[in-house]
Amino acid sequence: MLAKNEAKFINSLKLKKNRESEGLFIAEGVKIVNDLLHSGIKVRQIYSSRNFQLSIFNYHVDVIRIKENELARISSLNSPNEVLAICEIPTYKLVPAQLTDCLSLALDTIQDPGNLGTMIRIADWFGIENIVCSEDTVEVYNSKVIQATMGSISRVKVHYTNLPGFFESVRSGAPDVPVYGAVLDGKSLYESNLAGKGFILIGNESRGISPELLPFVTDKICIPSYGVQTPDQKTGISTAESLNAAIATSIICSEFRRRSRNHVQ
Amino acid sequence: MLAKNEAKFINSLKLKKNRESEGLFIAEGVKIVNDLLHSGIKVRQIYSSRNFQLSIFNYHVDVIRIKENELARISSLNSPNEVLAICEIPTYKLVPAQLTDCLSLALDTIQDPGNLGTMIRIADWFGIENIVCSEDTVEVYNSKVIQATMGSISRVKVHYTNLPGFFESVRSGAPDVPVYGAVLDGKSLYESNLAGKGFILIGNESRGISPELLPFVTDKICIPSYGVQTPDQKTGISTAESLNAAIATSIICSEFRRRSRNHVQ
Repeated sequence: MLAKNEAKFINSLKLKKNRESEGLFIAEGVKIVNDLLHSGIKVRQIYSSRNFQLSIFNYHVDVIRIKENELARISSLNSPNEVLAICEIPTYKLVPAQLTDCLSLALDTIQDPGNLGTMIRIADWFGIENIVCSEDTVEVYNSKVIQATMGSISRVKVHYTNLPGFFESVRSGAPDVPVYGAVLDGKSLYESNLAGKGFILIGNESRGISPELLPFVTDKICIPSYGVQTPDQKTGISTAESLNAAIATSIICSEFRRRSRNHVQ
Repeated sequence: MLAKNEAKFINSLKLKKNRESEGLFIAEGVKIVNDLLHSGIKVRQIYSSRNFQLSIFNYHVDVIRIKENELARISSLNSPNEVLAICEIPTYKLVPAQLTDCLSLALDTIQDPGNLGTMIRIADWFGIENIVCSEDTVEVYNSKVIQATMGSISRVKVHYTNLPGFFESVRSGAPDVPVYGAVLDGKSLYESNLAGKGFILIGNESRGISPELLPFVTDKICIPSYGVQTPDQKTGISTAESLNAAIATSIICSEFRRRSRNHVQ
């Protein structure tokens, strides 16, 4: 049974300002909620339209049984998926000096929630534990982002900060940490020297990396296009002009990890 | 000025059965329409809310000037983008023997329009000219697919066929053409022998490659996860369980092309 004021409260969390003031976010679906239950993120309450089973490790979480039409009233999904959880927004401390010896993602003004969610899933797959986002990157607790992570939100730490200030701190403490910037006129990813540590910097979907961040890039890299090399005589267009930001991220992360597996820089 | 029956006709093309019976599809946005105008696809009519300029190479296409609210009435986009084109569905002949000496994609029951559109964009980037889809793969002339291709639909040929029958034909003519199947328990992509020809077979988003297609796979490949290798004691979950199908496609295509650039199998 779903009380009216509960439904109202849950629906209020669909707005960023309310998520921020309450320190709460919503996750939906059996897989994502299960992943969250087994992560460092605290699940405060679960609403379920079926008999959702908790394992003995999280028996302290309240599960409220509701009807399917009640779930539909609080869900953000077109097809609600059995379970909805209210979770506490974790607070991760961002310490630049702790990220100088591993590989991290840095995201500059990523706007599309699906892209951010997919990038978190990619980071999880490739063992990248931290993503440092510019303050104007889409908010990670947006339900579209959470759903697109497919549970990876429970394993990857996403930080928001002033990116130029962050890179300034990193550089002052560890001047040799590479920042790989994905740009269209960089050196081929396949021929670049890639270390197993540093930052992969991905720019905005349409404008790329901001001018104020370019000075921090130590290595400009690009994914070579393999399309027909002779431009069309009429238009100059011969191939796709760019790859989607999440697609580019996946290709770059894969190449970094391939090298470190094979012990090749 | 948009006539009432024109608006009705254009809106009717939002349904697959009408696109098929009329042999027409709709594309929207300045970039996509421009790419189509310079491709082999015939653009029959253009509706534009601004002064859309045709180059001398396509002066024979009719451009009808309409108001922004009229464009909104026929557009499938949340934010209509100046121009909408009615295009003829091209008919490509699928000849198995012509695909034995190049690299192609084969898609088994891909359901998400965004995934198919992104895969077409990836194919375009990596110079893959043909995509062979199972008959139950989402229809490529669905507006969500067209928009997600970002114009690459004008350069990549997408075929629909009975995939087992297709692979049967390929194999009978050229028994040594490899079919690389992306599966979770395959050999590491990075350590597999990859030829510059054959088929990269991508399965359905949740079920993977269908049982009836597995016998045609000559090389099972997977993208190694780099997540924490020791599973969580409580759950066994240690990392993302899978990558999105379009993400996996991009990583695989990139690795194929990296090898052929470096002349390494």
